[in-house]
Amino acid sequence: MRGLFITFEGPDGSGKTTVASKVCELLKENGYETVHTREPGGIEIAEEIRNVILDPKNTAMDAKTEALLYAASRRQHLVEKVFPALEEGKIVICERFLDSSLAYQGYGRQLGFDEVLNINLFAIDNTYPDLTLYLDVDEQVGLDRLKGRSFIDRLDQESIDFHHRVAQGYREVRKRFKDRIVEIDASKELDQVVNDCYQTIMNRINDPRRTEEQ
Amino acid sequence: MRGLFITFEGPDGSGKTTVASKVCELLKENGYETVHTREPGGIEIAEEIRNVILDPKNTAMDAKTEALLYAASRRQHLVEKVFPALEEGKIVICERFLDSSLAYQGYGRQLGFDEVLNINLFAIDNTYPDLTLYLDVDEQVGLDRLKGRSFIDRLDQESIDFHHRVAQGYREVRKRFKDRIVEIDASKELDQVVNDCYQTIMNRINDPRRTEEQ
Repeated sequence: MRGLFITFEGPDGSGKTTVASKVCELLKENGYETVHTREPGGIEIAEEIRNVILDPKNTAMDAKTEALLYAASRRQHLVEKVFPALEEGKIVICERFLDSSLAYQGYGRQLGFDEVLNINLFAIDNTYPDLTLYLDVDEQVGLDRLKGRSFIDRLDQESIDFHHRVAQGYREVRKRFKDRIVEIDASKELDQVVNDCYQTIMNRINDPRRTEEQ
Repeated sequence: MRGLFITFEGPDGSGKTTVASKVCELLKENGYETVHTREPGGIEIAEEIRNVILDPKNTAMDAKTEALLYAASRRQHLVEKVFPALEEGKIVICERFLDSSLAYQGYGRQLGFDEVLNINLFAIDNTYPDLTLYLDVDEQVGLDRLKGRSFIDRLDQESIDFHHRVAQGYREVRKRFKDRIVEIDASKELDQVVNDCYQTIMNRINDPRRTEEQ
């Protein structure tokens, strides 16, 4: 029985890492074999690629080069980590995936939604997530939360305008993939957000469509 | 006046480097400003990407990851080296380009011609070469010439079958892009091959279509 591929999406500061960690704990407590990951995920080739992207001295990097490198890193992480875990029937929880590239490269870097989707479909072999949890926060809340962090990579230099374009990209993503993406109100208390995510995953596991497929 | 973008293609052992170097010398002697390059071409980001591809310890690299990395390296080399030289009106001679990926990744690695073309069109912004010189040698001649060389990267491990698939890929490339690609008989004496290439470039420079465009 193939596992379940679940991604967490949302802008910087929406709480993806914290929420995904707690959801994984809950899943494990309830007997589900779960892998929590995010690209490059300790996969050596993917890590090397990410080092090229984030190297602060690579300021001359073209936006399309960057998008191709993200797709390459995504591919290798899938092949070495995600696909094998799904084959073993596990639940894979991945922070950020395809939709992040659509929002950040497609809209943030203004490369175009379909152009970025196109190269990513090559990378993922049309393997969309089974379910995507979108952590929805007010744009300003996300930015305020970010101010408390210190960033050391190139992304630190991006403008507020960039963040607004990303928010617009995520709106487009939710519109295009509304069957796959469930919006979670991430402005609630953490425990409530975690519970909402967990319940959504349980609904997906118990979805009769899923049972039929197998 | 925009320059001219010329690529040299052909299988390993077809003599691309030697012929391209001599053609560049001839062009310079005749007063043409010429840039001779090949990816990654000393462009730091492209060099870093190529190091990831050729690292012998990266044996787990997926073929699609590799194709995306070649496209990324190509993009950065174009943006930093080829586009600026063309803007300055120079003749850019590039050893291997798009068609190599179609033959090596599309056919050699069996990823599919159109799939590989697709990600490369993203990388090159639909900038096809103005002219491609295909150095045609008998498959066996190419393989025999190669035996005299020592390879130190991963490509060394590829089979004879791989080389046959690449030859098939190059046949498809020549069929699809017959207006752009001129076949040069590279089994002739070196001086003759160089002269044939030079004359083909002169014909292209004096092509009335080219004059009309500008």
